[in-house]
Amino acid sequence: MKIVIIGGVAAGAKAAAKARRNLRDGEIIIYTDDTHVSYSACGIPYFIEGNFDDYKTLLVRSPEEFEASGIKVRLRHKVSKILPESKQILVQNLDNQNAFLDTYDKLIIATGASPVIPPIKNNCFKHIYTVRKIEDAINIKKQMQNSKRAVIIGGGYIGLEMLEAFVKNNVYTTLIERSEYLMPGLDEDMSIYIKEQLNLIKENKFEIVTSDAVIEFCGNVDGVTSAETANGRIIDCDIVIICVGVRPNVELARDAGIKIGETGAIEINKRMETSIPDIYACGDCSEENLIITNTPVWMPLGSVANKSGRCAAINACGGFDEFEGVLLSAVTRCLKLTVAMTGLTEKAAQKYNIKTASVIVTKFDKVGYMPDAKNIRLKLVADKKTGKLLGGQSIGAGDSDKRINTLATALLAGLTVKEFEQNDLTYAPPFSPTIDPLLNAAQILKGKIEGESQKTELT
Amino acid sequence: MKIVIIGGVAAGAKAAAKARRNLRDGEIIIYTDDTHVSYSACGIPYFIEGNFDDYKTLLVRSPEEFEASGIKVRLRHKVSKILPESKQILVQNLDNQNAFLDTYDKLIIATGASPVIPPIKNNCFKHIYTVRKIEDAINIKKQMQNSKRAVIIGGGYIGLEMLEAFVKNNVYTTLIERSEYLMPGLDEDMSIYIKEQLNLIKENKFEIVTSDAVIEFCGNVDGVTSAETANGRIIDCDIVIICVGVRPNVELARDAGIKIGETGAIEINKRMETSIPDIYACGDCSEENLIITNTPVWMPLGSVANKSGRCAAINACGGFDEFEGVLLSAVTRCLKLTVAMTGLTEKAAQKYNIKTASVIVTKFDKVGYMPDAKNIRLKLVADKKTGKLLGGQSIGAGDSDKRINTLATALLAGLTVKEFEQNDLTYAPPFSPTIDPLLNAAQILKGKIEGESQKTELT
Repeated sequence: MKIVIIGGVAAGAKAAAKARRNLRDGEIIIYTDDTHVSYSACGIPYFIEGNFDDYKTLLVRSPEEFEASGIKVRLRHKVSKILPESKQILVQNLDNQNAFLDTYDKLIIATGASPVIPPIKNNCFKHIYTVRKIEDAINIKKQMQNSKRAVIIGGGYIGLEMLEAFVKNNVYTTLIERSEYLMPGLDEDMSIYIKEQLNLIKENKFEIVTSDAVIEFCGNVDGVTSAETANGRIIDCDIVIICVGVRPNVELARDAGIKIGETGAIEINKRMETSIPDIYACGDCSEENLIITNTPVWMPLGSVANKSGRCAAINACGGFDEFEGVLLSAVTRCLKLTVAMTGLTEKAAQKYNIKTASVIVTKFDKVGYMPDAKNIRLKLVADKKTGKLLGGQSIGAGDSDKRINTLATALLAGLTVKEFEQNDLTYAPPFSPTIDPLLNAAQILKGKIEGESQKTELT
Repeated sequence: MKIVIIGGVAAGAKAAAKARRNLRDGEIIIYTDDTHVSYSACGIPYFIEGNFDDYKTLLVRSPEEFEASGIKVRLRHKVSKILPESKQILVQNLDNQNAFLDTYDKLIIATGASPVIPPIKNNCFKHIYTVRKIEDAINIKKQMQNSKRAVIIGGGYIGLEMLEAFVKNNVYTTLIERSEYLMPGLDEDMSIYIKEQLNLIKENKFEIVTSDAVIEFCGNVDGVTSAETANGRIIDCDIVIICVGVRPNVELARDAGIKIGETGAIEINKRMETSIPDIYACGDCSEENLIITNTPVWMPLGSVANKSGRCAAINACGGFDEFEGVLLSAVTRCLKLTVAMTGLTEKAAQKYNIKTASVIVTKFDKVGYMPDAKNIRLKLVADKKTGKLLGGQSIGAGDSDKRINTLATALLAGLTVKEFEQNDLTYAPPFSPTIDPLLNAAQILKGKIEGESQKTELT
């Protein structure tokens, strides 16, 4: 038995480790075009910020540890073709360009995702980075130490995390987001609050520009010196981070005839099987099932990659495991602000043709007399007809993520607002108000939905 | 329509406010033998600790605010008899001892609970307190400012909260718990960890004594001077807090012929109706339904009191509301340690004749490279036969309560370990490890249960 894994960041590395535990004998080999294997890409902004000094802290398992446990690791080896008929792969050693064929019994594709590079003129200057690999982490941190002004392009999760990192290192930062709001994945009535709250704490350390986009860089032999926006602003900078999103690395799979889903990522079933026998896919290159709607969705996140990698390995080793899917749960921190969400936003629900009822409350995260009580703004979204909870978004200096994890569990279980409102959450003054904001919101939303259905009955 | 409410701390005050909103016309009156109405008893330890200086901060609504909204409040008026046949109550004015009769259409009993006073010799010395009422808060805080050494009797929620309050005010404190462990409501394999962790941070500011009990106080005209224990220790002190538990105030209800449940609290249905028509009970004096087992339980907590008070008011006003019950969720903080739980412990499950499977994990609450990562020790308990989750306990410096609220939602929904393990919890390095301790524990527990059921199938 020989298991070949393509890619080794999160899903690939997890798959290898799990396969090793489940497979007494047999060969396991990881091919990756990367220079590192098994690392926490999500931790890069926190390394740059200075929470720890050695980039090696980001490495979960070293190639040596893999080898010691009987997993072969081939760094800088690009798999350029899969030949499903002969169960072979074509591999290219990126150091000496030698190509060779290898065989597999089971193949796990974990090729991940790559940063999207928007069409900006002169994006080849030095000190323009994306945030994805260990080299990015090292290079950005080094250049940041010589930088006075940074430009971040993109106001999503990574953009906000990089903003925190730069601000904490006293680099004046301009964050530019093309859409009208930061975190444009959220509903607008929530995302508007993020900019508002960040502007309250900016203390002349950063600026947030929305509804504008960088169209051209200027620079010299030493690197980038400024960025020009569509609205005509010229922003001096000596470091630029581009983080406008990622796309799944599916070329290899597509070329092999593996079915690509409507999300643009590799289509798989709950066992992580692709359309071709003995080939599995997991992590950021594959889609997942959205538990709420039972339809495919693409959710490139480290936690999901770990779970799907584990599932792929169990099945590739001859076991049986199913990964039910995702709830779109996510969280990020930017300075004192936590932004968390799970499930469907109202605008996402509309795309699924679900009529929604929603509520927004702004409440303290603990009893108001506690000196560290902070506001959180919480939105709950439910199916107007059935009352089933669809999702929630939470923004605030307070324990926003706590509420969202509670809510995710309700989505997993398919609870209605009425059922959820009966939840018995922990209460003590340092942890929540007597009635938690979540239950407060649920009470109001229940009233809305029941009022609605009463109206319907009357007509 | 005249609604009379007996008691006005949490359930009674909430019931009055809710009744006022639901009842356009009609009279609402609160009788209480207390000197204050509508206050946060749970906040008393935090007032004493010094999180805020004015005890009035603990008051949710003043008598004047109630009166302004059309709710009559009679402080220091003890209801000494209920006459259900004539729908009357006998009231005694505690200031002038005058007695009078009043009538009701609907009666809401919210008489709360009282501290248990263990049989300790000479417990009449000054500066021996329980923690329940506003006067207690004021008196303890005042005496604490003149105190050097405190004795706390009881190592439950309030004992631990008072320990924090005294230690933060530089009063050397000895906490004495009769049983072998602090928080004896938890499973022993968890509660043992609390003392262990507290001893790591005690820095000669407090001492924890278990398996011992105070049997006698010594003192003089100025107040208590020492406490002697069963094991012969004599502990000097100038303030004593007794917090060994509370018992429901049911005498009035029992005397009126209202059925008292097997828990010792007033028996009610989900609409908060007692065994006598037009009489409701809510808050600490009544039992609740335990959602997990669908059996009565007594859970004297502020959050529950608020919900049951609200429910009683809706029904008393002619509406329809059901309070499904509780999950036994609770949380407390002692210095850097958070202790939280929900659902059944293993020992509680055994009392219900449920065979359990359980797991304990000790994991970081966020990714280990984050500088503020802290261990949490987490226990999950499930039904060995069905795999249904029964409860969890969490102790640690980390975000223990977050995990317990997530779990409470799973209990509310009746999820099995296998279903729960598929949960999609938020992940980012400052908030959780890639695989949250909860899911990690669920994975292991699932394996245990499935291994068990496989063994059963084989035999």
